[in-house]
Amino acid sequence: MTEGTRPTRTAPAEDLRAFALRGIPELCEGDDLAALIVAAATRAGRHLEDGDVVVVAQKAVSKVEGRVVALADVEASPRAVEIATSGEQQEDPRRIQAILDETAEVVRVRPPLVISETRHGFVCASAGVDASNTGGQERLVLLPLDPDASARALRDRLQELTGRTVGVIVTDSFGRAWRTGTTDVAIGCAGIRPLVDWHGHTDSDGYVLHATTIAVADEIAGAAELVRGKLDAAPVAVVRGLDVAGDGTAQELVMPKGRDLFR
Amino acid sequence: MTEGTRPTRTAPAEDLRAFALRGIPELCEGDDLAALIVAAATRAGRHLEDGDVVVVAQKAVSKVEGRVVALADVEASPRAVEIATSGEQQEDPRRIQAILDETAEVVRVRPPLVISETRHGFVCASAGVDASNTGGQERLVLLPLDPDASARALRDRLQELTGRTVGVIVTDSFGRAWRTGTTDVAIGCAGIRPLVDWHGHTDSDGYVLHATTIAVADEIAGAAELVRGKLDAAPVAVVRGLDVAGDGTAQELVMPKGRDLFR
Repeated sequence: MTEGTRPTRTAPAEDLRAFALRGIPELCEGDDLAALIVAAATRAGRHLEDGDVVVVAQKAVSKVEGRVVALADVEASPRAVEIATSGEQQEDPRRIQAILDETAEVVRVRPPLVISETRHGFVCASAGVDASNTGGQERLVLLPLDPDASARALRDRLQELTGRTVGVIVTDSFGRAWRTGTTDVAIGCAGIRPLVDWHGHTDSDGYVLHATTIAVADEIAGAAELVRGKLDAAPVAVVRGLDVAGDGTAQELVMPKGRDLFR
Repeated sequence: MTEGTRPTRTAPAEDLRAFALRGIPELCEGDDLAALIVAAATRAGRHLEDGDVVVVAQKAVSKVEGRVVALADVEASPRAVEIATSGEQQEDPRRIQAILDETAEVVRVRPPLVISETRHGFVCASAGVDASNTGGQERLVLLPLDPDASARALRDRLQELTGRTVGVIVTDSFGRAWRTGTTDVAIGCAGIRPLVDWHGHTDSDGYVLHATTIAVADEIAGAAELVRGKLDAAPVAVVRGLDVAGDGTAQELVMPKGRDLFR
């Protein structure tokens, strides 16, 4: 490797940088989330820049889109009651019903745990239905109906407000097969390439790499989670310093059923 | 949310920062990888700091540990020949044999693709056996025998050389069930907590969150990949600004079989 032309000083332009935005208030249906993001960035003196990726937790998006149901309004079916009550831990049958209502196909059940395929094709626990942090103990937050559209709308509004061309990723915390813990992944995106394909690139020995398509949108989502978590799960983070501009969608991250070995 | 006490200036100490190290040479068995990392950091004027997480691609570790086999030395069994030749794409039966040799349990086969459980309990394509970027077209790089031990040794040596207390993560690119593309994940670690458990933490509404154990080691691995990829898959990156010091291992990231719904 040739080192002669490399500058010896630091090269921060090559750095990835991620920071969370403080002070996004509790969100309600109809709130202008983009305006709240811009306000939070402005208060922090950290204006959005072209090429930034704005990463927003799904719950924030769902709340402003009104994708919230009151638990009291859910009526549990016999199947929901069975799943809720037949495991070692008991669950509220109405919560299971809300999960089943959001489920296109049940992938696995270990009561009360339900692994669902959602309307979007995502495979995740509880169809992404979440009870915590909802602004009221008896409410459930559902995934956005079309998280890619949510990301596009947010991106357009951010551009309108700031003049900056950014990427947007809507994220959720998903468990994984075979591994413990959750990682944040992209469920919606706009203005970025979610997959970077090194297929056909040559490696450092000069021959062609195997297909290694990297799910950069998911890695960006994870990086954002690391800084969001530091601020008590702040809903928005900015990831800076990447070159991932493009026009992909998170649907590209859904494994086509014909290629899927695990359903 | 109370905004009154928040400073309005930038707060870079809260940022996550990740950068790759240039100029790690092609590696051979017995190389002092820690010394090469320190040299690369020094050349870049970016000395390691206490609390940094040094993220190293598995291939670099495997090479210095001599976990490399010559394809010519592998003799294919009838089963390897069958898997290699019965799919739409043909594969070298010796490569399949090397994969089977590294496999504790075959999880799925779609010839020539083999999804394996490795000796470490990781479920991944090809048992982590990789042919690219090996310093010779006819060699295969295997996973380290004990990546947690590799990480510990590297961490100890980095401390010896620099006086700094860092975390180390050894990573590999794994595919995922249900999602396209790969993300880098932790297969070995030292000096960090791979899982951060928010169980029992209260959310911003004041009530207790569901168990949400976050696989921060995997998210850090992914962040490192984003900057390693920018430098033509440089084998080492540094992730700075996180508070993940601890003494966990990547074995904690392996889902116990009794809890695993997908095998």
